[in-house]
Amino acid sequence: MTDTYDEEPAAPDGSGGLSVAGTRRLRLDIAYDGTDFSGWARQPARRTVEDVLAQALAQVIRLPEAPTLVVAGRTDAGVHATGQVAHVDLSRTVEPDRLLHRLRGVLPADLVVRAISSAAGGFDARFSAVGRRYRYRVTDQPVDPLRRHDTLAWRRPLEPERMHDAAQDLLGQHDFAAYCRPRPGGTTIRTLRRLSVARAEVVTIDAEADAFCHNQVRAMVGSLLAVGDGRRPVSWPVEVLRAGVRDSGVSVAPPHGLTLIGVDYPPDHELAARAAQARSRRALSS
Amino acid sequence: MTDTYDEEPAAPDGSGGLSVAGTRRLRLDIAYDGTDFSGWARQPARRTVEDVLAQALAQVIRLPEAPTLVVAGRTDAGVHATGQVAHVDLSRTVEPDRLLHRLRGVLPADLVVRAISSAAGGFDARFSAVGRRYRYRVTDQPVDPLRRHDTLAWRRPLEPERMHDAAQDLLGQHDFAAYCRPRPGGTTIRTLRRLSVARAEVVTIDAEADAFCHNQVRAMVGSLLAVGDGRRPVSWPVEVLRAGVRDSGVSVAPPHGLTLIGVDYPPDHELAARAAQARSRRALSS
Repeated sequence: MTDTYDEEPAAPDGSGGLSVAGTRRLRLDIAYDGTDFSGWARQPARRTVEDVLAQALAQVIRLPEAPTLVVAGRTDAGVHATGQVAHVDLSRTVEPDRLLHRLRGVLPADLVVRAISSAAGGFDARFSAVGRRYRYRVTDQPVDPLRRHDTLAWRRPLEPERMHDAAQDLLGQHDFAAYCRPRPGGTTIRTLRRLSVARAEVVTIDAEADAFCHNQVRAMVGSLLAVGDGRRPVSWPVEVLRAGVRDSGVSVAPPHGLTLIGVDYPPDHELAARAAQARSRRALSS
Repeated sequence: MTDTYDEEPAAPDGSGGLSVAGTRRLRLDIAYDGTDFSGWARQPARRTVEDVLAQALAQVIRLPEAPTLVVAGRTDAGVHATGQVAHVDLSRTVEPDRLLHRLRGVLPADLVVRAISSAAGGFDARFSAVGRRYRYRVTDQPVDPLRRHDTLAWRRPLEPERMHDAAQDLLGQHDFAAYCRPRPGGTTIRTLRRLSVARAEVVTIDAEADAFCHNQVRAMVGSLLAVGDGRRPVSWPVEVLRAGVRDSGVSVAPPHGLTLIGVDYPPDHELAARAAQARSRRALSS
């Protein structure tokens, strides 16, 4: 679930969102069951989504080496995605529909490319994004065995109303350092637009922000679970936020309940401006 | 998905729905991911739901041998259940809540006992049931990898409206021999109360009947898929029904899209009468 947009150098192609001559930027809409992946980002000797997808692209296009992928949400090991977005720059001779068809023939069942399209000018999967949406599923009832891969079982009874109340105090632009695994030189200021908790089939926690820093969603969920089962008062999550440092009382919730469900982009004509803006480091604006 | 209620002798205890002296009949509400089970019914050297559950019961109650379970829907290999019901007769000293707690400690993650309760007088999980409800999930879009275990991928575009229209002609009491794998001495007369097809997240086929004969739901779904993707006319499924013999043109749909979602019982005071009635072989009543 890690989003590290503002903490790393610009995309490796250095193009500032413009595709290199002779190439075309493709947008890939992706879903995966994170159970058997060590997260998105390529790591030596690990099965990661990025690596499996890049290898599959190289195979079907017959590239000498795996192409570079840029992704909207760098999910951690065990985290799932139904609405992940990535981009890749490939030769103009590669036709999106044909590529999609051939990719489906080689990808494993736990990694699905839902769509491939020619990206609008200025599109950057990571820097053009204006919002990321995650969902966390947890239940204090017996887990439906068909959903055990993406639902956390919680042994104590949960009160979603308390969790929702506590969550509302976290909304807005804040320095979420208390909920983030720090990265050197990175800011932990984010704008949290939604953090809602409701009991439907299971207890569902929906989180939306411009971006999330590393561990943020799972740490916030962990603090809300402590409120939900009565171990902490409703005021506690925002007290942790205000303290501004990581609190050993906050347990980071397990990854398998978390799914990246969507990434939002502005209208096409604002894509390039948004990417330029996101590249500059965020600062507390007021 | 096989329901063989009217084709087998009465429950092994021969009690006619009454519990043996010193024992108490317990109702078990069960869910399972059928992926790694060879169906419900015990078979030598196979991992079946019945066997795993009976062995777990024997272990936690310290019985010399596995107890006999009676189930509402004898699901086939690969078929799932969220609303399965079974009963077992155990010593009155076995306390339901404590049994549930201890069972959960030993059962594997793909088999969940949702509840255990003392059964009302006359209750028989199989013979008292007045209805079984199944759901089949299929999609002509890329499969959500988190739901690939219980969703069939269909390569051709589906028209759910055509499927729904065709399904309505199958409703009512009929001899479903054309859709059943025959059993010697068994009737294939059933009352189909609902067979509805709609596109939501995926195309969902909901089937409800007093009971289903072996392979019936999956064979009906197979005929509807041929209508949905345009290979057969809307009139075809009912023509198959009327022919009264199995049609080699009907493909039995794969098991993994199918889930037993519920079993319905009459009010407590009608349980015994319903069980007696279901034990007598069904005959076409008009």
